[in-house]
Amino acid sequence: MLDMPSHRYAVIMAGGAGTRFWPASRRMRPKQFLALGTRTEEAMIQATVRRLRHACPPDRILVATGQHLRAPTAELLPDIPPENILAEPAPRNTAPCIAWATASVLRRDPDAVIAVLSADHLAEDEPAFHATIDHALRVAESGTITTIGIVPTRAETGYGYIETGEARADGALNVARFVEKPDAARAEQMVQSGRFLWNSGFFFYRAAQMMEAIGQCLPALAHGIRQIDEAAARGEEAEALGRIFPGLESISIDYGVMEKLSKLAVVRGSFGWTDVGSWQTLWELSPHDDAGNAAPATAVLVDCKDNLVADLSSAGKRGKVIALIGVQDLAVIETDDALLVMPRNRSQDVRHVVAALPNQGHEDKL
Amino acid sequence: MLDMPSHRYAVIMAGGAGTRFWPASRRMRPKQFLALGTRTEEAMIQATVRRLRHACPPDRILVATGQHLRAPTAELLPDIPPENILAEPAPRNTAPCIAWATASVLRRDPDAVIAVLSADHLAEDEPAFHATIDHALRVAESGTITTIGIVPTRAETGYGYIETGEARADGALNVARFVEKPDAARAEQMVQSGRFLWNSGFFFYRAAQMMEAIGQCLPALAHGIRQIDEAAARGEEAEALGRIFPGLESISIDYGVMEKLSKLAVVRGSFGWTDVGSWQTLWELSPHDDAGNAAPATAVLVDCKDNLVADLSSAGKRGKVIALIGVQDLAVIETDDALLVMPRNRSQDVRHVVAALPNQGHEDKL
Repeated sequence: MLDMPSHRYAVIMAGGAGTRFWPASRRMRPKQFLALGTRTEEAMIQATVRRLRHACPPDRILVATGQHLRAPTAELLPDIPPENILAEPAPRNTAPCIAWATASVLRRDPDAVIAVLSADHLAEDEPAFHATIDHALRVAESGTITTIGIVPTRAETGYGYIETGEARADGALNVARFVEKPDAARAEQMVQSGRFLWNSGFFFYRAAQMMEAIGQCLPALAHGIRQIDEAAARGEEAEALGRIFPGLESISIDYGVMEKLSKLAVVRGSFGWTDVGSWQTLWELSPHDDAGNAAPATAVLVDCKDNLVADLSSAGKRGKVIALIGVQDLAVIETDDALLVMPRNRSQDVRHVVAALPNQGHEDKL
Repeated sequence: MLDMPSHRYAVIMAGGAGTRFWPASRRMRPKQFLALGTRTEEAMIQATVRRLRHACPPDRILVATGQHLRAPTAELLPDIPPENILAEPAPRNTAPCIAWATASVLRRDPDAVIAVLSADHLAEDEPAFHATIDHALRVAESGTITTIGIVPTRAETGYGYIETGEARADGALNVARFVEKPDAARAEQMVQSGRFLWNSGFFFYRAAQMMEAIGQCLPALAHGIRQIDEAAARGEEAEALGRIFPGLESISIDYGVMEKLSKLAVVRGSFGWTDVGSWQTLWELSPHDDAGNAAPATAVLVDCKDNLVADLSSAGKRGKVIALIGVQDLAVIETDDALLVMPRNRSQDVRHVVAALPNQGHEDKL
């Protein structure tokens, strides 16, 4: 067991349609390419890779993304070997993504243990993040598929929850069940109880064990991935991937596998985690003035409260002024070719704008 | 009386600080330079001059403006002789402006009759406008200082009113009194009564008669203007103007003279007049979609009502998209170096933003 750490791998899920953070995010510049909430110029995916180096070196970090994002992803991550970038020919949700990535790792290393994380989440307290990842990997190495449950800091309705069961000897807890995004009252109840954690979507497992679980829970998916894997062993992966992957069932790993496992461990995490899910979340994360406005210092705000103002345009860099009078709870987002104005709590409706763009002659803003 | 029309002059008041329509208007690009509500590229001041040609030729149209606006005003009005542009060294409200312009005309033509109008008002029904101006000039020529009262089309609280008295034989009415901007209930009452008209701020008079009235009502102003006029007759106007004009009492012609006259006539006007006083007014004037939005055709509006969207930026001309979700009654105004977002009914507070610009490092946006 002493050499275990050398079998550690990470798979970073870096898909994303680029709609939630429109107009900052685009099809060719999805959320993980942005520096949202990082307070530096570091893209979220770069921060994710940097944080993972503590667990494994870059040549054992794999990045799963869409084919159209392969080149720009590689460009952002020069330390990741090109063959570690797994380009999906079509988005099929997390189960096919994780199955393919896991099979790819397993081909290299039959003893591999994998940490699966998202490219577009934040972890503010990096030492705590490292310790939690290490803990989860150790639980996984000992033979239990493991997730991280974030200790809730508020009655959030935007996340799924994990109900915890008995404590384990290794410091983790058993997962009692997964809970869908709750309403406000239920969220309040769950957080009060102390038994519920936020579902981070991070998973830790021995690669062979996960392939077995997928084979039991999603046999058709396992079959398809096996065909791709066999083709890969013959050096013919590209053809098989293009032929098979787009036909795989589009299903999440949570729903397709994790919720069906009889035994799943959860490690409690408390490291300033957020999935930065929307402009609303970004406002929550950002520094505010006394009136709750998160805005550039050069903005002129008269009688305004709790607004999010972001100017990502080149005119903004040249000193363009954004002036707001008498508005509250708005998000105002400027880019070079788009302006978005909406109440912050309508963040989930940004997709309607994105959907309407082609009909209005704005295909170039997708 | 047959040669009267040849003594007709017009004075166009074209001052303006450029604050109300910020960020479209600026100190060096005040409202009358914009094409607001004209539905063409014609600047409001150009439209005003064009409409006045019916009353008198360009060489008898004078334009009073600020010294900093002399050159751009002359450029917009190539048919107006340069000596007809009266450049005030400091803004002193309408009484000094009208007194100086009137003295200047009187020096040229002792029998002059003058129409005073604003450079930044609209008149949609031009034949009706011409007929009304002609009527007012005829009343003025017969010896009564005259104004135009606009027949109200709604209970507007943003305008002053004129209460009418007895009808005159010449088709005009006597002015009973001026009424300040009313509250909504009083405005409703006044409009219902049929006796009240909107104060257009247009005046018509024999030049000599007006100088006499100013001499009676504002003797200090009359004295100052006489000094400037005498210097002008000696070809030394510039020096006297710079020395005397900035010290003249800053007072409106309404308050300083018109309200004190024992006899003032008003001609009823109904020609689609508006002073385009604010972004709010511009929304009222603009064509709307079914949900009351006045926005470019390329804007993407999701669940929006009664908004004004204007993109005057060069990015807008290149196809920048403005997307609004779930907002109502907002004004969203884009220019190359500024964005303004506010409820339409806060239009009067734009001046607070303009006042704050220098402190925020935005002197260049004044």
